[in-house]
Amino acid sequence: MLAALDLYVTALEPWPRVPFLGRALHAVALQLLRSADATLAQEVHTGDGPRPFSVCGPFVGDDERLAPRLVPATSYRLRISALTAPTAAALARALEPERRPVELALDEVIVRLERVEATTDTYEGLRDRYFPTGPVRRTIELTFLTPTSFHSGGKDVPLPLPELVFGSLLERWNAYAPFTLSPGVRDFARECVGIAHYDLKAWVVNVAGGRHAGFVGRCGYRVLRYDPYWTRALCLLADFAFYSGVGIKTGMGMGACRRSDLDRPVPDRAGEQA
Amino acid sequence: MLAALDLYVTALEPWPRVPFLGRALHAVALQLLRSADATLAQEVHTGDGPRPFSVCGPFVGDDERLAPRLVPATSYRLRISALTAPTAAALARALEPERRPVELALDEVIVRLERVEATTDTYEGLRDRYFPTGPVRRTIELTFLTPTSFHSGGKDVPLPLPELVFGSLLERWNAYAPFTLSPGVRDFARECVGIAHYDLKAWVVNVAGGRHAGFVGRCGYRVLRYDPYWTRALCLLADFAFYSGVGIKTGMGMGACRRSDLDRPVPDRAGEQA
Repeated sequence: MLAALDLYVTALEPWPRVPFLGRALHAVALQLLRSADATLAQEVHTGDGPRPFSVCGPFVGDDERLAPRLVPATSYRLRISALTAPTAAALARALEPERRPVELALDEVIVRLERVEATTDTYEGLRDRYFPTGPVRRTIELTFLTPTSFHSGGKDVPLPLPELVFGSLLERWNAYAPFTLSPGVRDFARECVGIAHYDLKAWVVNVAGGRHAGFVGRCGYRVLRYDPYWTRALCLLADFAFYSGVGIKTGMGMGACRRSDLDRPVPDRAGEQA
Repeated sequence: MLAALDLYVTALEPWPRVPFLGRALHAVALQLLRSADATLAQEVHTGDGPRPFSVCGPFVGDDERLAPRLVPATSYRLRISALTAPTAAALARALEPERRPVELALDEVIVRLERVEATTDTYEGLRDRYFPTGPVRRTIELTFLTPTSFHSGGKDVPLPLPELVFGSLLERWNAYAPFTLSPGVRDFARECVGIAHYDLKAWVVNVAGGRHAGFVGRCGYRVLRYDPYWTRALCLLADFAFYSGVGIKTGMGMGACRRSDLDRPVPDRAGEQA
């Protein structure tokens, strides 16, 4: 079970310069989990593996850019995504209309929770899009919505190398899905996937005591040596990114990501200088 | 001997949409070499190693961006850089005022050669800036002026990973300098140099029958684990980039690059979101 819960909130007072709120969103997610399933919240909080949820926001309404400021009477969106059935169930219960909190604390500021919208999928559903058949693309574009970074070779790598992006998605898929993908996906991404185009912006964030060089923007990946199985696996993982996020600290607001080549036809020569 | 020769030219007719002129600049460089030293030109032309020169342009005057169009009566700059003493000597001779061509052919268009300015250094001079002493910086910024790409693992990698950038510079330095740097520079760059900030734009070029995903822009590198020898070697290579360029097809207009952190003080937290 996969669920992305969009919490639409309004600010009660202006906040002219919003810092990166990853830690505050993490606290909101844990608070919601705790209100519905204290045991699960405790497990998640004390476990040392990746969190079975990701968070991001605040975005201005349905826009995809982080809000630089909060203005009263404007709608902002926080997203909490669940990667396991128990987490999804607990969050859904915590956000039932009669049960959910009226207000949420985002660091210094209190926001009012106006409504919640859910998008859901299942691991089986994602798989069935591409296996054994289904439309695949050879050029896949990902849009990185919040600062994204990877930990590789003992350092932060703030660049969306194919093997880091798809390797991270693969790791998360295999941690939670009821059926795993071959670890060869990472090698295929390294050896047979090229970067076709990008539009990236570096963005350094301070979150939970750590300072990370990250980036936001778009990156197009092209399968250079076509292979049906691996290309299907990449498409599947690109869709999964909507829920899982990618890279480090996705439970702390980093690495929110979604597939964007399906928004429009991607020409074969995308990225060529106009 | 290292020389960067700036050829200031004016267009005789407008060219509303200038394509990537790498191949034309390569032809100009070979033509100049041939006019002064036919044997050397032949060696360079038929050799299969890297070219002992790099080319880039046209830039608008002293600006650092490639000119999207040529307008008559405007000054444009082409640069040819020599990495060996014979090449530098031959180009200098070919460009002597009484000897140099009045006009140059850039693909479809003829430009008038107005004047030439030279910047020179020696390998010894670059070394003496940093070895055994001299001011070093822990954050080094490179500006990539023309589309830059690297060939790694059988594919183009259009991202300025520290090991690719400094590995390419090291390879070129060791091919031409009278004294080599340790191949450990590449490992140091991979393991101990992080990306601190960047502002990059993808740019696909067609040059000499090949299509390459590349990029232009700035990238700041930070030595994460300081070591005097390696850091000095990185500073030296960053300075060398002005002449050598970096990555693939520097003899065909790609990979023009220069160190830019010395333009201004680079704060320790450069790249942080404003």
